[in-house]
Amino acid sequence: MNSKLQWLRNTMASLDLQGLIISNPTNIKYLTNIDAEGVLLLTRKENIYITDGRYIEQVHSILTLYDEIIVYNISDVSQEDNENFFMFCENVGFEENYVTYAKYKEFIRKYKINNLVETEHIIEKQRMIKDEEEISNLQKACEITDNCFDYLLIYIKPGMTEKQIANEIEEYYRQRTDGVSFDPIVVSGENTSKPHGVPTDRKILKNDIITIDMGCKVNGYCSDMTRTIFVGSVPEYIKPVYNLVLKNQVQTLEQMKDGVSTRLLSKMVENDFKLNGYDLIHSIGHGVGLDIHEAPYISYKADSQLRENMIVTDEPGIYIPGKFGVRIEDTVQITKFGCISLTKSEKNYIVI
Amino acid sequence: MNSKLQWLRNTMASLDLQGLIISNPTNIKYLTNIDAEGVLLLTRKENIYITDGRYIEQVHSILTLYDEIIVYNISDVSQEDNENFFMFCENVGFEENYVTYAKYKEFIRKYKINNLVETEHIIEKQRMIKDEEEISNLQKACEITDNCFDYLLIYIKPGMTEKQIANEIEEYYRQRTDGVSFDPIVVSGENTSKPHGVPTDRKILKNDIITIDMGCKVNGYCSDMTRTIFVGSVPEYIKPVYNLVLKNQVQTLEQMKDGVSTRLLSKMVENDFKLNGYDLIHSIGHGVGLDIHEAPYISYKADSQLRENMIVTDEPGIYIPGKFGVRIEDTVQITKFGCISLTKSEKNYIVI
Repeated sequence: MNSKLQWLRNTMASLDLQGLIISNPTNIKYLTNIDAEGVLLLTRKENIYITDGRYIEQVHSILTLYDEIIVYNISDVSQEDNENFFMFCENVGFEENYVTYAKYKEFIRKYKINNLVETEHIIEKQRMIKDEEEISNLQKACEITDNCFDYLLIYIKPGMTEKQIANEIEEYYRQRTDGVSFDPIVVSGENTSKPHGVPTDRKILKNDIITIDMGCKVNGYCSDMTRTIFVGSVPEYIKPVYNLVLKNQVQTLEQMKDGVSTRLLSKMVENDFKLNGYDLIHSIGHGVGLDIHEAPYISYKADSQLRENMIVTDEPGIYIPGKFGVRIEDTVQITKFGCISLTKSEKNYIVI
Repeated sequence: MNSKLQWLRNTMASLDLQGLIISNPTNIKYLTNIDAEGVLLLTRKENIYITDGRYIEQVHSILTLYDEIIVYNISDVSQEDNENFFMFCENVGFEENYVTYAKYKEFIRKYKINNLVETEHIIEKQRMIKDEEEISNLQKACEITDNCFDYLLIYIKPGMTEKQIANEIEEYYRQRTDGVSFDPIVVSGENTSKPHGVPTDRKILKNDIITIDMGCKVNGYCSDMTRTIFVGSVPEYIKPVYNLVLKNQVQTLEQMKDGVSTRLLSKMVENDFKLNGYDLIHSIGHGVGLDIHEAPYISYKADSQLRENMIVTDEPGIYIPGKFGVRIEDTVQITKFGCISLTKSEKNYIVI
């Protein structure tokens, strides 16, 4: 059986689950590499994927014998089959954070389940720790993101609009990867004060400040990087803020390793910002994988620990409303004794 | 109170609902015009929209006194407030087809609800019947779609790829509307045999057949139109199929009016296709509004009746695997005594 399904079955055993219904397409892609519409049933003895005529051919071309997944066309599955899948299963799990209430009731009816139980992100927790192949995809996505950034430093010229630069990023990624992992953020001048600004028709000026937040997907795996750059020169009044953000981004990176508390990391940045008169207004990082934002979340709200082979972002930022903002972000791999930044673009003052 | 909320409150009264929790963003946009993250609570006496700091300003700029909606910042809402919202409400409804099981349990806990009940698409059913303003937006979206089609007839030349044409459609709409209502389908040659084909790098040939399925959004409201066109000339072997699809598309249009059964409409096309040796492999239409696909659905599965001021598509198609396919689709407004096609592009053989 493929190792991700095997890992999941071990967790199921420890939770006294004899069956599991998986319907979140990202979780299905993670476990099986299947990118289709359907449902994955882990029964006592079998792994069953049920899809419809549109996808049967494609699904068969993806799976190997090693996966040990049986594929059914939904039109060949009788009500009797449905009732047999989870027979003799005491507890069957489902994804309570994905499945609608209507679907929940349908599962109980259709599969005749006695005890359909919540699983508290059982698969999302497993997804936090990446295997070799996943890390290789993430490395690739980060490398192409660094290349894209190098290209932008030559491409961007005063007079271009934010939208035009964002379109160029999309085009760059479209030609080399599965495309963007999220709509690129390109904001300039006073627009940089919005952490999640949307590119506008504002034109880049001489002596401007620009924040670029972007990433792509390689085999479904996402990269995420932010840099704040300058046109012509770095204004004196921005330097203290830039230096403070960079100092905290680097210090966080130096602290990140297996076993470290995510809340503590966040608190350290928050305290240093406060000491200097600024607020930390968003979380300083999040997991990256098949989803651009996934567990773990690095903020004062979430008390979890970093683990070896988690891939997370490190992205402190300071925003002065109506004036400007600075954010510096890398995608980072956690190791036993430290961490490796997968995005490697320059972080000291970047002037174009 | 705005008329859509008033209509909904009347329906609630008839269903013995004293409260309603609305979380589907499309339903919230429909009822309030708000495009933000938040939840709309209809309590015994008040309409309450709860959002967070990021959206407060924007929400206030959209609402008028006439809406009678009170806006709260979630950080100002205490647990006591939550428990008061639905006090004295016997039955509170929720959207069981949108809300996850986890959210359902959270609602019960947070708002201390005794009886949280399913509402069976209460708002989606209301959304089927469009008011004047909605129809005006839909007319506009259809008009721009006709214009885009006229433009394409001049733009498309042999040697261009399907992707290139699809990108041009996106660009055309981006400049004039809120953008596409779905990823345009541009398929050519044998690719036309796939009803939901994705544009490829295949180049348009002399004497090719091309199917284009496209639409845009105006103030959030969608258009949807398909034409199958020809390069150079119409091949003789395609003519009988084209004629059969067109005949059924026009006959369906002639039958559509207030009171007609959607199942009957579908059956008529299915029978005529069968008599000629072809299968009907997809539904012949669907409602169009804030969603590109919404109720009612026109197929043998769904037994509903058309009603005045429903906006639906009329889109029969025939597909010969590995060879070619033909689909002709209009967006149509149902009236008391017939229907009005909102897309008006030519439907007889179109040769470029």
